[in-house]
Amino acid sequence: LSQTLGAIVVAAGGGLRFGDADKVFATLGGQPVLAYALRLMAAERAISAVALVMGQHNLSRGAELVAALGLRDVVVCTGGATRSASVQAGLRCLDPDVTLVAIHDAARPLASVGLLRRVLRAGDETGAAVPAVAVTDTIYEVDDDGSISNVIERSRLRAIQTPQVFRRDWLEQAFSTLPDATTDEGSLLHATGYAVETVPGERQNLKLTSPDDLVVAEALLSAGLVQV
Amino acid sequence: LSQTLGAIVVAAGGGLRFGDADKVFATLGGQPVLAYALRLMAAERAISAVALVMGQHNLSRGAELVAALGLRDVVVCTGGATRSASVQAGLRCLDPDVTLVAIHDAARPLASVGLLRRVLRAGDETGAAVPAVAVTDTIYEVDDDGSISNVIERSRLRAIQTPQVFRRDWLEQAFSTLPDATTDEGSLLHATGYAVETVPGERQNLKLTSPDDLVVAEALLSAGLVQV
Repeated sequence: LSQTLGAIVVAAGGGLRFGDADKVFATLGGQPVLAYALRLMAAERAISAVALVMGQHNLSRGAELVAALGLRDVVVCTGGATRSASVQAGLRCLDPDVTLVAIHDAARPLASVGLLRRVLRAGDETGAAVPAVAVTDTIYEVDDDGSISNVIERSRLRAIQTPQVFRRDWLEQAFSTLPDATTDEGSLLHATGYAVETVPGERQNLKLTSPDDLVVAEALLSAGLVQV
Repeated sequence: LSQTLGAIVVAAGGGLRFGDADKVFATLGGQPVLAYALRLMAAERAISAVALVMGQHNLSRGAELVAALGLRDVVVCTGGATRSASVQAGLRCLDPDVTLVAIHDAARPLASVGLLRRVLRAGDETGAAVPAVAVTDTIYEVDDDGSISNVIERSRLRAIQTPQVFRRDWLEQAFSTLPDATTDEGSLLHATGYAVETVPGERQNLKLTSPDDLVVAEALLSAGLVQV
């Protein structure tokens, strides 16, 4: 890789989605959910610094976990009220010499090292890369009243995951154009005119959005279907 | 319900998706996958007849399962090469007095009785109803080269499940217009001009499309997260 790499692990927004601010500390395979994303990033030698973005109330707990895991090069930063604000906070925490940034949701504990490297390589080459998997369900668009307004041709649809990798200057430019974006960063860069490449994601790299998802993740781990 | 109800359980197409024609006989919670859809439909007193559509090579195995489960009112029918041909075969197997039809994929063993009744009620009222769940992933549309061409506004998207419930005459009309449809029947009815309503689906009502999905389904069953 030709650039200096940093990573942002976003753990500040988890509370909103779970209705419980502490779910990144829920136990998965005997470890806190957050530990997986941290170890993934910290273990990748190409990454020189990791910004862990947490809600104010979780800062000390996050720092304790980083210490307990014996991870160096992880800085705990205070997030904002939105994902966008949190990622921007993470960017400010990274050393100025970082030119390429991997952004990863702590709520996706099962991303593999292989996936991370694939996205890093593509991001290094193209400036903006995100992992994507085929959509297996039939997708409809619905009206306000719940009736079908459109059936969407599934073959071109992809469900987008993290880690996502971007040139830092593109990210900063995109955030300065749309500071209140409510989307993932791939969508933000697309919206602000950058070309974003997709690389093959992993079906098992699920996002924990409900307690049921934890059960599913636990099953995938126990069955040896993921290596993390 | 004001109509005479029949059901079609589609088990003929499963082989294509699994790369193994016998995966509806894979074991889930100690029972063949197919047993779940059959019992769901046969146990619903409002449903007077069930057509089980199987591939030619599985007909006797299907009949044996029906007998072993002690189910009455289940007719085993030979499917076609496509989903559309199989559903049309199922329609021909149903008694002429059936006016409202529930169509269910055998590959969705975890649909609940509550879900079935919700769709039956809505289908009886409106003529066409399908279960739908919110899409939690960010969805992109991609070009041939894998770059993002469009970010789709997620709030109006729904992932569609079965059982789906339709007026029989609408279904037959739709199939006579588009006999080679490659979609689910809700999409077919929409494409041929009928209004199709969505009712709330169930996240755990997953479609088994890979061996990993069986592991997930087993976990949901063991954790008591589904009642089937």
